[in-house]
Amino acid sequence: MKKSDPVENFIHLLSKIPGLGPRSARRATLFLLARKEMVLMPLYSAIKNLVEDVSLCDTCGNISVGQTCKICLDPKRDQNIICVVEDVSDLWAIERAGAFKGVFHVLGGTLSAMESIGPAEINISLLERRVFARDNFEELILALNATLDGQTTSHYIADLFSGRNIKVTSLAKGVPIGGELDYLDEGTISAALNSRKDF
Amino acid sequence: MKKSDPVENFIHLLSKIPGLGPRSARRATLFLLARKEMVLMPLYSAIKNLVEDVSLCDTCGNISVGQTCKICLDPKRDQNIICVVEDVSDLWAIERAGAFKGVFHVLGGTLSAMESIGPAEINISLLERRVFARDNFEELILALNATLDGQTTSHYIADLFSGRNIKVTSLAKGVPIGGELDYLDEGTISAALNSRKDF
Repeated sequence: MKKSDPVENFIHLLSKIPGLGPRSARRATLFLLARKEMVLMPLYSAIKNLVEDVSLCDTCGNISVGQTCKICLDPKRDQNIICVVEDVSDLWAIERAGAFKGVFHVLGGTLSAMESIGPAEINISLLERRVFARDNFEELILALNATLDGQTTSHYIADLFSGRNIKVTSLAKGVPIGGELDYLDEGTISAALNSRKDF
Repeated sequence: MKKSDPVENFIHLLSKIPGLGPRSARRATLFLLARKEMVLMPLYSAIKNLVEDVSLCDTCGNISVGQTCKICLDPKRDQNIICVVEDVSDLWAIERAGAFKGVFHVLGGTLSAMESIGPAEINISLLERRVFARDNFEELILALNATLDGQTTSHYIADLFSGRNIKVTSLAKGVPIGGELDYLDEGTISAALNSRKDF
């Protein structure tokens, strides 16, 4: 079958999605074709809504229906606490935990010397404006990934706000809940030891 | 986020696809939203084409653009040799091997006592009509899966054509190419021994 074939074309596009290779894309296509009314048609209208209605929030960079996302619009969220994350997936992970009542700022990446991504390429300047626009700003929580690039970016942002009387914190590092010491790397164990608390 | 949210709704639908759970559906959604022009829009038109143009072939049950599929329409394929398969995925697997020049008949399932699927529920009566409609019919190849239900269905179809002077064959059973004896089940090894050939 050629690329011009609608089935082959669909499989080709589907196989670009992370987690679906050519083989599982073929399986998914047959699954969808056997469920035209139940899944394929709803998926079609769902994509239409996605393309037409969803964009990035003007304020925080989260994906949003409309100019400003639900979290930024929510009057119950504390606008004076901003949690900085790399990507929307990290924002979702924190929202699933349900333990944070401030708002977010999505950088859309990290600084990276290897991939020549500088401060202008990620959503940093808007963060400064957000923080300085508020009179009673309380805390900036750096929730970037514990990778080299994530930590570099954390340090860069912390430097940006140093000497400005703004509280900058980062997520605690330690043993994950349910974690077994035997399976943890030395870095995590050292961090957990250094940040040990009274029992 | 509620189901009415276009993003959450899309994730929910995507997670129904085999191979994508809720977690990978979330990842895929962010991937697609970041590539609206490159992947999401083409995927949208691909689904449109799929819904509008693709149905089952009137003759063999393969998925098809138009009433009759490409294989049935191909003048180079021998209409007097029919290979019977359970599903379109099996047809694709045989086509990928490129070793078969006849045509197919897709049953769309197997007989199953457990799931009360009888001969009327799968595409068998059309197979009889196809075979008896031809004056020079040569061979019916049963390429059903080597499962209990697949083999039951093979026996049922073979019985249907017995005493009618029609050659019915099935795929050879034996050691797969690249297979190691140590990892094969006893059934396969017995079958390979019983069907041993001169070297």
